[in-house]
This record gives sequence, C-alpha cells and structure tokens, in this order.
Amino acid sequence: MRLTFLGTGAATPSRTRNVTGLALQFDQRRALWLFDCGEGTQHQILRSPLRLSQLERVFITHLHGDHFFGLLGLLASRSLQEGSDSPVTLYGPAGLDEFMRCALSVSRMRLRYPFTVETVKPGKVYEDDEYAVTCAPLAHGIECYGYAVQEKERPGRFDPERAKALGVPPGPLFGRLKNGATITLPDGRAVDGRALTGPTRPGRRAVVCGDTYVTPNTVALARDADVLVHEATYLHEDKPLADRALHSTAAMAAQAARDANARALILTHISPRYESVTGSRLPELLAEAQALFPNTYLAQDFWAYDVSRRETSP
Amino acid sequence: MRLTFLGTGAATPSRTRNVTGLALQFDQRRALWLFDCGEGTQHQILRSPLRLSQLERVFITHLHGDHFFGLLGLLASRSLQEGSDSPVTLYGPAGLDEFMRCALSVSRMRLRYPFTVETVKPGKVYEDDEYAVTCAPLAHGIECYGYAVQEKERPGRFDPERAKALGVPPGPLFGRLKNGATITLPDGRAVDGRALTGPTRPGRRAVVCGDTYVTPNTVALARDADVLVHEATYLHEDKPLADRALHSTAAMAAQAARDANARALILTHISPRYESVTGSRLPELLAEAQALFPNTYLAQDFWAYDVSRRETSP
Repeated sequence: MRLTFLGTGAATPSRTRNVTGLALQFDQRRALWLFDCGEGTQHQILRSPLRLSQLERVFITHLHGDHFFGLLGLLASRSLQEGSDSPVTLYGPAGLDEFMRCALSVSRMRLRYPFTVETVKPGKVYEDDEYAVTCAPLAHGIECYGYAVQEKERPGRFDPERAKALGVPPGPLFGRLKNGATITLPDGRAVDGRALTGPTRPGRRAVVCGDTYVTPNTVALARDADVLVHEATYLHEDKPLADRALHSTAAMAAQAARDANARALILTHISPRYESVTGSRLPELLAEAQALFPNTYLAQDFWAYDVSRRETSP
Repeated sequence: MRLTFLGTGAATPSRTRNVTGLALQFDQRRALWLFDCGEGTQHQILRSPLRLSQLERVFITHLHGDHFFGLLGLLASRSLQEGSDSPVTLYGPAGLDEFMRCALSVSRMRLRYPFTVETVKPGKVYEDDEYAVTCAPLAHGIECYGYAVQEKERPGRFDPERAKALGVPPGPLFGRLKNGATITLPDGRAVDGRALTGPTRPGRRAVVCGDTYVTPNTVALARDADVLVHEATYLHEDKPLADRALHSTAAMAAQAARDANARALILTHISPRYESVTGSRLPELLAEAQALFPNTYLAQDFWAYDVSRRETSP
C-alpha cells in the first residue's frame, strides 16, 4: 500500500500546497483510490506518476469545498481519456449525490464509464476479498468521516523445512499444504497443512481522517493502525483557532496517534499561515507532534509513503 | 484594457495549458473581470500578478465543465481572503444560478461578500459610465455566448493652442472648455468649448467568444472590434472533428475575424493533441490563421495582451 499526497494545504491552495487530495495504490492490483479531491487534484495527478485511468474509488471525508470541488473536473477529464472505461464509485456524506446530479445535469456531462455515488454511514462502506473500508464520524461541525482501509488477514507462513522433515517431497504437494489442505503421503500417513503454517498474519491498516477536532472516534478508528493520516491545521500556540473552527493542532493529532497506538502518523492539511516569504514554521509544527509521538511525518505535495508490513516474529 | 490568459487549452488541463480562463483589467480602475473560469483558475491567478480581491464580475460563456468548474473554489478562496469584501456578480446562461445555489447549499459555503448571479439573454448584460457589455448566442449545441466589452465614446481632443489664440488664459478655464462648457472671457466674448474639441473618439471593443462553430453572430458581435478572442480547437485538416463537436478550426476563427473587420485576433482553446512530447504543431495552427488574417496571435497561459487605442488622425 502506498499513499501519495496530492494536496496537503488547508482551505485554499498556496504556491506550495494544493487543497486536499490523497491517493492510495496497492501492491498487487492496478487500482487507484482517492481520499478527498480538492480543486486541482486532476492537475496534481497530471504532474505525478499516477494514472487517472486506474481510478476506481473516491472517498470524500466531508463537503467543505477544499475537499471535493475537484471532483467534477477530474471525473470529466477521465471521461475524455482513451481507455478509461472502468467503473468509478464515489463514497461520501449525504448531499454529495445531489451535488453530482446537479453538476452533471447543468453541464450536460455524460460520463463514458459506469459511475455510482454511495452515501456513507458509520460502519462498513466497502469490502472485497482483500480489503474492507469502514468509516467513523469525526468532529468538524459538518458531517465528516475518517476512513480506515483494513487489509484482511493473510494465512500464516508455511514451514517448508518441517514439511520436508515429515517426508513430503517438494513440489505441488507443498502448494496444497500452504493452502491448509490435508494430504496423504504414499506411505499412507496424513499430513495436515494447517499444522505446518504459522499463525495468520494481520493485514495492514491505513486510516485517513477528514478535518476534525479531538474525538474518541479518531482514536477508535486508528486503533493499532499502521499509519494514521491526520490533519494538523495549526500549531498548538494557535489552539484557540483550532477550537473555533473545529480543527486540530499538531499536538492534538499526535495525541490521537499515541492514544490509538498507531505505528506512524502523517500530518497534513497545514495552514498556509506557517509558510510565508519570511520563513517557515513547519519544523516547529513537526517537532511539536514528534515530542508526543516520535514516528511522525509532515506531508508535502507529491510525497509518497509506503505502508510497510509489520515485522512478524519468525 | 489588458487581457491576461489564464487557461488556453481545450477540454482538459495539460502540462502546458490550463482549461479556459481569461482576465480583463482596465486602465483607470482597479477591477478584475473574468471570462470563464475553468478548474484551477484560482491557482493560475495565484501564479500571476492579478489579485482576486479586485474581482468584480465573471462572465461565463457556457456550462461545459472546462469553462466554469473553477468558480466554486475561486469564490470560496476569495471569501477567505482579508480585504475581499467588494461585491461579485456572475453572468451566465440559465442553469448557472441553480448550480451555484446547489453547491453553496451542499458545501454550506457562506460568501463573506455580496454575491449575485444574473442569467443572461442576448443583448445588453451590463453597463456603467465607461463600459457596456453585450452578448450574442453562438453555435455550440448548448446555450453559449460571446461577450463584447464596449468602451464608451470619449470626448474629442481639446485644442489648447486654439484656446490660447482666442485669448483664453491657461488654467481652470481650460478644464471647463475641455468638458464642453461655454465660458465668458473678461472682455465679454463667449467661447464655446465644443468648438475647441475634435470629434468624439470611439471607445475600444474587446470581444470574447465561447466555444463555437461558424455563425454570423460571431461576425456581428466582433464587427470592427479592436480584438477578437476566438477558440481554435483544431487545425483545418481536422475540420471533421470541429464539425462534429461544434468547434472551430484556426482558419474558421480567422475567417470570422476577417469578415468582422476586427483589428486583431487571438486564438485560444487549443486542443492538447497538437502539443505532444514528439513536437508542437502550433506554428502551423497560427500560420493557418495568419494566411487569412495576418494580425493573429496564439495565446499561451499567462500571456497578456494590451488592447491599444486606435490611432486617430490629429
């Protein structure tokens, strides 16, 4: 799983950060998922190695403009691309379907690929053989969600040495044992594959939160997550601004990651006030979070983060 | 009057051209008018010397996404800027008001400045002391307009030498004569200011067309215009594409400028097909138009064009 940050600024685009957009790619499948899609997300994709043709799902956290005004142009441009015929599903709060219906109708846009809008509610929003996506409501004064992408458990590791010691000849029988089957050897002994594999291995969990103030829902959603992407609009010295607009400071984001026992925290949705011609206060913002949660990163536009697997004991 | 091209590509943004957006500034007033506002127009303004705080009017030619999907983010960002309190009026085809209402409602956007949407019909859409804006329907398969900005006639040039010869002392009396007043000299003679000024001087006319196929309305709107901004999506060798999608080739745009007796033609809305990694065919596109209408320019993003006054005979 790889996250690519397409927009990491708050509220309005700046010269260094676009408004919110985040791409997720997978190890084995050629699919692109987006989390939020602020204006100019298609422009950022154009300047990245990502391909709009692979777009499969877009999860919208909330309906503030800087998180979804880029949807219309992105979907329209994809419809004009050769070979972009695969379906796209949009997930988001109530009102998103109405917005899309209105915009498609007024602009007489007929998307050439199957297109669906699903209104989400807290709980499971998507599931396939390998991944499940759930969402939880956050605290932002408007219906707003965090999304957790949970990779499913994978079977335990198969121990070929033990199989050989039992007299199983390497070859096709190994494959059946790996899948947990019971085989019968030429001498009549039965060998149970499940006894030759270790414990099932947990899948990775990536959690992407929309704009939010402190809420226990963030902590619950990000419990033991491999990575938590959390907004950090303000420095903690500006906490009154965060209180007023229901945003988070870097320290608040770090506290959530710490309480959730997450493995890594990525800060995004940074207020443009901290990057001016006179200098940047972003090192302070990062340090403030790292003081509470050392494994914190500060996202930049076009920065990619690989969600590695946990090291498992042999 | 100065035109600044913010987006000069057709349909989708490319690495070199954004989707349509065009700014108009004035000699004497600090006002910014926009013609169309494709996605990313606010990003282009951010990278230009233009100021969103000066935005006064936006004229939308038609409701294809690449001409208006940037409105929402642009208006939202302006609302977050200090000192952007002056009113903004939006002009465009039926449906624009519905789109804005829907988007403002769904995103709970409350603009901090007075904001109005006016649905245009062929004819006059705006007028003040110095300028009038009229629009005419074009041929694009969807309600689509060209806008003509007509500077009003200015009084004729005042001839100070003739005034002096009549014995008028230079000073405040000159000002009154310039304004066409009749003054009485100390010796009792009356001097009529109108006799000391030349013929009224015509104002400049800038015409900005939306996407269109050939139509006599373009020619009528652009009659004697100082500048005609016209789409040239295709080379004439691709005319079948223009016929199908109701666009123009460079030759068709040049013919319109020629028929209208315009002074200058600026080509924009260029298909990305002519600029690829293997080379550019834009010199051909420009040459094709110049063969019919020599005073043709090919717009680029961020290029500015000053609409000069006609030289008048002394």
